[in-house]
This record gives sequence, structure tokens and C-alpha cells, in this order.
Amino acid sequence: MRLSRFFMPILKENPKEAEIVSHRLMLRSGMVRQQSQGIYSWLPMGKRVLDKVNKIIREEQNRSGAIELLMPTLQSAELWQESGRYDAYGKEMLRIKDRQERPMLYGPTNEEMVTDIFRSYVKSYKNLPLNLYHIQLKFRDEIRPRFGTMRSREFLMKDAYSFDLTKEGAEHSYRKMFAAYLRTFSRLGLRAIPMRADTGPIGGNLSHEFIILADTGESEVFCHKDFVDFDIPAEDTDFDNVAGMQSIFDKWTSVYAATSEMHDEAAFNAIPEGDRLSARGIEVGHIFYFGTKYSEPMGAKVQGPDGKEHVVHMGSYGIGPTRLVPAIIEASHDENGIIWPASVAPFDSVIINMKAGDEACDAASERLYAALGNAGQDVLYDDTDDRAGTKFAAADLIGVPVQVIVGPRSIANGEVELKDRKTGARETLTVEAALNKLTG
Amino acid sequence: MRLSRFFMPILKENPKEAEIVSHRLMLRSGMVRQQSQGIYSWLPMGKRVLDKVNKIIREEQNRSGAIELLMPTLQSAELWQESGRYDAYGKEMLRIKDRQERPMLYGPTNEEMVTDIFRSYVKSYKNLPLNLYHIQLKFRDEIRPRFGTMRSREFLMKDAYSFDLTKEGAEHSYRKMFAAYLRTFSRLGLRAIPMRADTGPIGGNLSHEFIILADTGESEVFCHKDFVDFDIPAEDTDFDNVAGMQSIFDKWTSVYAATSEMHDEAAFNAIPEGDRLSARGIEVGHIFYFGTKYSEPMGAKVQGPDGKEHVVHMGSYGIGPTRLVPAIIEASHDENGIIWPASVAPFDSVIINMKAGDEACDAASERLYAALGNAGQDVLYDDTDDRAGTKFAAADLIGVPVQVIVGPRSIANGEVELKDRKTGARETLTVEAALNKLTG
Repeated sequence: MRLSRFFMPILKENPKEAEIVSHRLMLRSGMVRQQSQGIYSWLPMGKRVLDKVNKIIREEQNRSGAIELLMPTLQSAELWQESGRYDAYGKEMLRIKDRQERPMLYGPTNEEMVTDIFRSYVKSYKNLPLNLYHIQLKFRDEIRPRFGTMRSREFLMKDAYSFDLTKEGAEHSYRKMFAAYLRTFSRLGLRAIPMRADTGPIGGNLSHEFIILADTGESEVFCHKDFVDFDIPAEDTDFDNVAGMQSIFDKWTSVYAATSEMHDEAAFNAIPEGDRLSARGIEVGHIFYFGTKYSEPMGAKVQGPDGKEHVVHMGSYGIGPTRLVPAIIEASHDENGIIWPASVAPFDSVIINMKAGDEACDAASERLYAALGNAGQDVLYDDTDDRAGTKFAAADLIGVPVQVIVGPRSIANGEVELKDRKTGARETLTVEAALNKLTG
Repeated sequence: MRLSRFFMPILKENPKEAEIVSHRLMLRSGMVRQQSQGIYSWLPMGKRVLDKVNKIIREEQNRSGAIELLMPTLQSAELWQESGRYDAYGKEMLRIKDRQERPMLYGPTNEEMVTDIFRSYVKSYKNLPLNLYHIQLKFRDEIRPRFGTMRSREFLMKDAYSFDLTKEGAEHSYRKMFAAYLRTFSRLGLRAIPMRADTGPIGGNLSHEFIILADTGESEVFCHKDFVDFDIPAEDTDFDNVAGMQSIFDKWTSVYAATSEMHDEAAFNAIPEGDRLSARGIEVGHIFYFGTKYSEPMGAKVQGPDGKEHVVHMGSYGIGPTRLVPAIIEASHDENGIIWPASVAPFDSVIINMKAGDEACDAASERLYAALGNAGQDVLYDDTDDRAGTKFAAADLIGVPVQVIVGPRSIANGEVELKDRKTGARETLTVEAALNKLTG
């Protein structure tokens, strides 16, 4: 992508409304724009990152056997009356009347709708287990949306819903998602710690939040520091292996971890002092097993192998992509801007032409741009006539992992400079060697 | 994907509510489910097709130089008061009050919001031309939603918005989208005919609808039959070539084509009778040039090369993916079900194991499934214990281009049967030869 043809509106000033660093950097780098309170547009740079985050989430959901569909944003109130949550949900639910005066709502979550889909089609245990997910917009009318897309009103959520014949089956489904989440966060460059959590308005009796540690976290968390070194399930993990899933789950729940709501001071103090970790955390995922809480009132039943009807056991599993993006920034930035993990970077590299219009600089930049593009890389080419200093600052701000700097002095020797955004390390190489290194 | 682990709820009965064939087939094949009047879930099979349609739309938008972002679904009423459309839009606009009693709406289109984004950031002609698009849900509260996702209330739209310094520039941007649309529909397996159209509530003075001919079309259309043979712009088309874009546009507007609203009986009758085509059509895209209709009241201006402020010239360009899916079915089906064009098929092929549990059938099916998957194909493997007849009917219904039939009799000779869903042609080949043919 040539920057002269891209839309990347970088702000020179620090936006006053931003209280946390991710919000400030997302506004400054032109990733998002607030349209109304707690409602954001994702500008092209932000959209690219969001797409990469979604892709990783999707790949790991699919790997674990979950099946993607797409439910709508607007739901009928009737469905929520069936589960009893229509009145219970409170003011965070955006209630709407259509032109026929029918009561509707903008879905804050989809337990009811997916249970309705399930009961319409699935009649036999032979179709179980089943895990259906979608990545769809939600709306929660928070009284005080803040921190940019970290806590917005309209937001994207990946929500999966598992259906099993038995409690044991449902617990295996829960552990599959648990393992899928560990893989997902790890691929996003995050170390997330699962913590026993309160089930809140979703309900149920088993729940974990996945928390990343960050100074700007909303909640206080307490855990054993061993978590930092636990192994992430490998790519070839067999999600159908019940014992395997159990052992991953057991390992990751073997030492103390809790949010402040679930905190047990005595248990925490039993950990040797040097191993205690007390910090602020950001919730990036939340999983629930809630048995028959929705299937019972909504009549989601299947015929079992015994010929009788069984109410299915369910769980739900959420990740917020629009919240993950700022969470990644909170975990990975410096005073000059964002430092994207390679897996979600909006571009793999940025070519900085220090002197656009200079014949040698243009020729080398174009050659690099074409060759890296042909090698299948996403490359941003800063071909604008901005000053070199402005370009360097912008490249640091947007946090693309590799900067390829083409300047008139080095190019006279046939050389360019590579800068690693994360370490700041620089090396001077011939154009050829730089290409080999970047595509090798 | 193993069918035993997929979610593809095929209906045995013809759904009564479906008035047109695409709606009937989408319900029967388990692609969609109505959740409320005019509001649909896209079940896994439908979601796969929708994703492929979106991918083609996106590739062609990007090729033409448009830049993707993502605007939210909910908008503030204020923005629409600025353009004067808040009162004008009528009951199709879903008006909402949030918990603070602020008037909001579920966006039926995004001219106002994108103009607001533009004016916030773009100050100089140097950043033009610019074309921003997104693929986002819209809501239009139609009094009589019908025909399934062909005319639903919540629907997906790709809407692009171009910004230019001059009218001439804007006309070039219009012709670029015109050419991109020709390519898009062609890749979707459709022959779409651009017709001069009324501008309706979007406004402006130049507009084309892209119409595909189908008996179930909502509108009557009239055109010269030469359209059927006009060339589609090639993949390497240079969208920056002003004369090139002009010549594509001139060619495709050189002969008569009009919807009933714009129909000129005399002009049509001037065509030799044998060349007249009068038919029903389905609108699958609509493009508009509307000059300064939004930029003027909303103050979207840039500094020109003359140092003065210029109100920008705009156009907007819509395609409805959730409407395209049924449109493709209307254009491509038979009495047994859907016939997907390869470009949007939910799977490239389906392996029908006629006798799951039979050792030879299972082994051959598994081998084919693994080999086709390794070759990068999307394969559905019907590994269920349904009767062979049920499997054949389902495979025809879901319309996957190639069926690979593994039966006990042929596999005894090491052979399988390939069936082309479109032509019905069958051939018997060794497993090896079948693999070579499908991956070759």
C-alpha cells in the first residue's frame, strides 16, 4: 500500500479525551475515531489490525471444532422473555421499537437466540456435541463508556455456544474452549492467565476470565507467578482427547489465580511471598458453563441413546476483538508508539523513502516495494513528500515491526537500513541482502 | 469438513413462507433462518457463501483503489439533521433512544458519517482522490420485508464513498467503480447490466443500477440484447487510466438499458425488434454521483492547488452481499437445488460415502478427504450413516460443484464416480485419477 493512496490520518496533538495509553495511541495513529459516545469507526489502519485479530480467533475456534455462523444484531424481545432475562438485564440493554411497535433489542449477547436455533433443528444426541460461534457486533448501553474501544458501547464479540448431552460432555467442551483460548491469546502476543470468576448475568456454576496483566487494568488480580512459564497447547493438540484437555485444564488451574471478586486472601498468603503476583489486569475473554439455565426454560432437548428426552447442557465463551486490540497495545508499546506483535501488525514492514523525488531513492524503494509485495508481504510504502523526521516518527507511532529506510546517502552505496521497531536495532545492508533477509 | 461434525440442518419439507425459489432453497439447504420478520441468521453453510461473496467484493474494491474501514451500525441523529435527511428519511429509518434519551438511529446508509470522517481529517487536495468503503450491517425498516434475504430489514451492504476535488475527478471515480462492479458481478457468475436509474433518497444527478435478469425480479427492465456479449474489464485493468475507464463506461452505456422508472418507450422501440430484451430484473448494485449534496451542507472542503477552499464532489456505491446470495441462486438452480458458481460455492467438492462403516468405502473416502484438503481445497465429507439416496439429494440441494461418489461396488475395482453438479455429467475413475483431476 502506497501511503499517498492510503487513509492514515495521524494526529499531531495528544487527544485530551484519552485517559489510557492504548486509547491515545489508537487515536493518534488514526486507527479509530469516536462517532458518538462509546461508538467508534475503525479507520483503515485499525481495520487491518482488527481483521488479523479476528482471523486468529477464527482459526483457533475452527481448530477446536467450533462451527461459524452469523446471527443478526437485532433480536425480538419475546426470546428474552422466554429466558426471563428481558426484565432482568436492566438499562445496559438497548431496547428498540420497530415501525410496527414490536419490542426489539440490540443483542448484548446471544444465549437465547442460539438456543432458539438449536431447538429448531437439533433433535438427536447424534448431532452432539455442537459448538456454534459467530463474530458479531453487540451493544451494551454502559452508563460510562470509556478507554476508547476497550469499553465501548457498540463492540465486536466472538461468542461461542456449546451443546452437550451430559454435564461431563459439557465440561469437556468447556476445557476445549479453555485450551483454544490459551492458544488464541498466545498467538496474539499476549500471556493471558485464566482466573476463576463470578458468572454475573450469564449465570452458571463454572467460569473463568482470561486476564492479561497491565498497569491500566480495570481490576485487581492475584496469582502465582508460575503462570508466566506454563506451556501453551501446541498447534497439533487433539481437542477430542478428553484426558488431554483435562490435563491442560488441570495444569492451568493448579496454582492460585483470582480476580478481586473471587479473591481468597488466606489461600493467596499461603503462596511463598516471592511467588505472589498482585497486579492490575484486563479481561480479554470469559467462559461459562451454565448447564441447563437456558435450555430448560427454552425447551432445548434432544433424544438420548436411551430413547428419552434430555435437556442439553450448555456453555458460552466470549472474546472481544475490539477490546483485544487496545489490550495488545497496553501490553506492547513504548514512548514513541505502538509495537505490534508480528501476528497482528497492520503491515509486515514499512518502506521509508527519505527523499521522495530523488531518482535513486525512488528506484530502490519501488524495487523493494514490488519485491516484498511479490513475496506475499503486506508492505506500507511511505512515498509521500513529508520530511524524513515526520516519516520516522509516524513509522514508530504505527508500530510496524520492520522499517526499511531508504536514504540518499546509503543508497549511493547501494545500501538501505533495516530497523527493528521493537528492539530499535539497526543494520545497514545492500538492497539485495535486505530483500533476502526480509523474505528469507 | 466432516458432515457429522458440521451444522447443516436440511429441511425435508418445502417451507410454506417462501415465495421465490432462492428463499425456498436457502431455507431447505439450511443456509439461513428467519429470527424475526426480515431478520435472518446465516447458518454455517450460508455464512461460507456469504464470506466468499464478500471476499470477491473486497478484492475488486481494493483493486480499484478503494480503502476499507468499518463504520458502526448506530449513528447519532445529529449527523442526519446536518444533511437534512433525518426528517426526510421516513419510517424506514429505525430510530432509537439510548439510556440518556439521546436520539440515535440504526444506519440505513452512511453518506453523513463518512462525510463527517472526511471533514475531520482531510484538508488538502493532495489527499484526493479518496474512496472509502466498508462492508457493514444496515437496517431499513421496510413495511413488507419479503423474499428472504433478498429484501430483509437487517442486511449487509458494501458501501463505498468517493471524494474528489472536481466534478471531472468525481466522474472518473464513478467510472472506476462502474468497472469494478462489472468485474465483481462477473466473478460471482452473474451477468449484470448497468441501467440508468433514478437517484431516489440518495440524491444526485448520475446513477446506474446493476441489474441481473431473472424471472422473479422485482422490476421490469428493458435493454438491448448486445449486453450479453460485452467484454468484462480484465484483471490487469489500469483503474488510473482516465481514457481507459471512459471507454469501458462508454461501451457499456452505448446501447439502450433502463428500468421501468426510466424507461423511454420510443427509444426502446427504435431498437430492431429482434434485439430488444424486455424482462424482469433484480437490482444487485447501485452507484451514484451526487456532487456536493452532502459535502456542501456538512462543510467537507479541501484546500485546492489554487490555495482556495473547495467543496468536494462525492459519489456513493452500494452492493448488497446478503441480497447477492439469493440473486445468484435465482440465476443458477434447477429442480434439485442450487448450482453454485465455483467462485462462491460453500465447498469445492463433496465426498459422498455411500456406505459409511464399510471398510473399503471409509478408507477411500478418508484418503480422498485428506488429499483434497492437503491440496488446499474446501471439502465436505458426508460421513454420516444416512441412506445413499438421502446423501445424493442433499448434495444436489446444496449445489457443491463436484460430487465424489464412493460406493462399495465401484471401490471394489478401486474406482469412484465424479459427478458435475451443473451438467450432471458422470465419470468413473480410479481414486488416483480422480485426485489428479480434482487437484490438477
